[in-house]
Amino acid sequence: MSTERTEISSLGEFGLIDHLTRNIELQQASSVLGVGDDAAVIDHFGKQTVVTTDLLLEGVHFDLMYTPLKHLGYKSVVVNLSDIYAMNAVPTQIVISIGISNRFSLEALDEFYEGVYAACEKYGVDLVGGDTTSSQKGFVISITALGEVAPDKFVKRSTAQKGNLLCVSGDLGAAYVGLLFLEREKKIFMESPGVQPDLEGESFVIGKLLKPEARKDIVEFFAANDILPTAMMDISDGLSSEILHICKDSNLGCVLYEEKIPVADQMKNAAYKFEIDPTACALSGGEDYELLFTIPQADYEKLVLNEQISVVGYMTEPELGAHIITKGGGKHAITAQGWNHLT
Amino acid sequence: MSTERTEISSLGEFGLIDHLTRNIELQQASSVLGVGDDAAVIDHFGKQTVVTTDLLLEGVHFDLMYTPLKHLGYKSVVVNLSDIYAMNAVPTQIVISIGISNRFSLEALDEFYEGVYAACEKYGVDLVGGDTTSSQKGFVISITALGEVAPDKFVKRSTAQKGNLLCVSGDLGAAYVGLLFLEREKKIFMESPGVQPDLEGESFVIGKLLKPEARKDIVEFFAANDILPTAMMDISDGLSSEILHICKDSNLGCVLYEEKIPVADQMKNAAYKFEIDPTACALSGGEDYELLFTIPQADYEKLVLNEQISVVGYMTEPELGAHIITKGGGKHAITAQGWNHLT
Repeated sequence: MSTERTEISSLGEFGLIDHLTRNIELQQASSVLGVGDDAAVIDHFGKQTVVTTDLLLEGVHFDLMYTPLKHLGYKSVVVNLSDIYAMNAVPTQIVISIGISNRFSLEALDEFYEGVYAACEKYGVDLVGGDTTSSQKGFVISITALGEVAPDKFVKRSTAQKGNLLCVSGDLGAAYVGLLFLEREKKIFMESPGVQPDLEGESFVIGKLLKPEARKDIVEFFAANDILPTAMMDISDGLSSEILHICKDSNLGCVLYEEKIPVADQMKNAAYKFEIDPTACALSGGEDYELLFTIPQADYEKLVLNEQISVVGYMTEPELGAHIITKGGGKHAITAQGWNHLT
Repeated sequence: MSTERTEISSLGEFGLIDHLTRNIELQQASSVLGVGDDAAVIDHFGKQTVVTTDLLLEGVHFDLMYTPLKHLGYKSVVVNLSDIYAMNAVPTQIVISIGISNRFSLEALDEFYEGVYAACEKYGVDLVGGDTTSSQKGFVISITALGEVAPDKFVKRSTAQKGNLLCVSGDLGAAYVGLLFLEREKKIFMESPGVQPDLEGESFVIGKLLKPEARKDIVEFFAANDILPTAMMDISDGLSSEILHICKDSNLGCVLYEEKIPVADQMKNAAYKFEIDPTACALSGGEDYELLFTIPQADYEKLVLNEQISVVGYMTEPELGAHIITKGGGKHAITAQGWNHLT
């Protein structure tokens, strides 16, 4: 954190916008006009546009006590891009609005935007507009992301088919365990401010929470290998909640195998320190930003070479409901909170 | 205001989204897919897309003590559409995110959305997505609007030409006087809660504040009469601030005639009750959402039939600066706050 402190009020609203946008270089040919006018202008070259938006509030979605502002800026962009990839589309532009109270200095805001621009650069998207306003209390972030997709190549949640394979990218549950560590250390710090945080060895799970990535590579893999998922969404609220969305929206049931759910060894070891079940973290943790998708069984061969994709189950007729087969062979109904041991 | 009270928490996040979006009917052929997935999908038919966003915070941008929620919903949409029209574009879709604390009931939220949907219907735009979250305190509204424009027909702020006529739509300053009335009555009410507000006869200025409209008709008039302004923006921060934007961005000066600035008789009479100058309200008041634009002198004949358009001055070379000629014949430099009597 820089030690200088410039009052944001010393710049004025337009000075602030000039300051925050002074280094923008548009990367997308479709960005005809960016920040600095009433609105941005975007060209399409025959593609369709995908749009998504997220509102992030301090104290609800993030805690600045353990979230570096640069990471927050990065993550704010990434969670929106994840929604664009979940449509099988390529993100192209974002607009970002922020509300800030006077407890934030210009240097603090610059750190946030450093993260925003780092994400834009990594994912090749242009920041083309936004709004900056004062808030009475707390930091408010609203991001809208636009993306493009060839007509009829976008993938909805509601179009999975019976017999399709249910697949996920990456590994699950780590961000949730990272959150448990940071909340524990915050609690210790609040009670004994002299104690240094003990996060030794937990950089994997903490990194998954503070600096998630969107699965650009998976969508590129689909395009390169001529794979069109029948349904897809990103995993932000935990695997079981998202599986239930696909089942409900597609009017299907499913079978999920616990042993197939991808979890990292670092996550398992970290979960054991809290004496919690790694599978429960994967099912209910949230903030993974991995992709959950369904494909026809005939496409299975196309997937096997990608180690970042796991087949975790299959879709059934709706009457069979949504179930998980545990490692012990038990069968339980999936609930939004994980699974219900009573059924 | 309805007297029922349903706790929003009783619906859950997805129940709430279902509830708020249950009556959406998409109007735009370009809205391929609306709410209910990771992102919306929009087609273009060879047009370019215009995008703008606004963040509105309770206590900063609006006061719920005198702002009916339905009006707030309507206005939140309209102020964004105004930015789209200011690009000479036609608004087509919006996404809206809200953060709400538990002091809001579902009925209160429904009133807000009634206004949102009323504006969508009036202006023919589709609500295609959004995000709904809890806030710790206060009502947070973020709206992003998309619009379309034929390639190269969008109008920027930076392209006014020397000798162009400077024009405004409608009349100015009324919303500001409306705000003065409401703030006065709020103060009286806070001091003596039994006293009923005295807003008799001020429905014009109060209506301009609480339920502004965007100038769809002006953009349609341009299209019908083959007029392409050389520069345009909407008037949200007061006429003088916006004129300075066009001068700066176009690297020009201007002359503005006080006697040409359109003000309504109701606004003048209301301003006199506060013993303030109606011209000052027009120059510095803000929240007018009228259009400020420049046209070549050769297009003057095309404008004269439209009583909703006033020519208020002309653009000069930059060395001459931006000046107002007052009714008394004085010449003053225009400042963002109105004009500077010392120059």
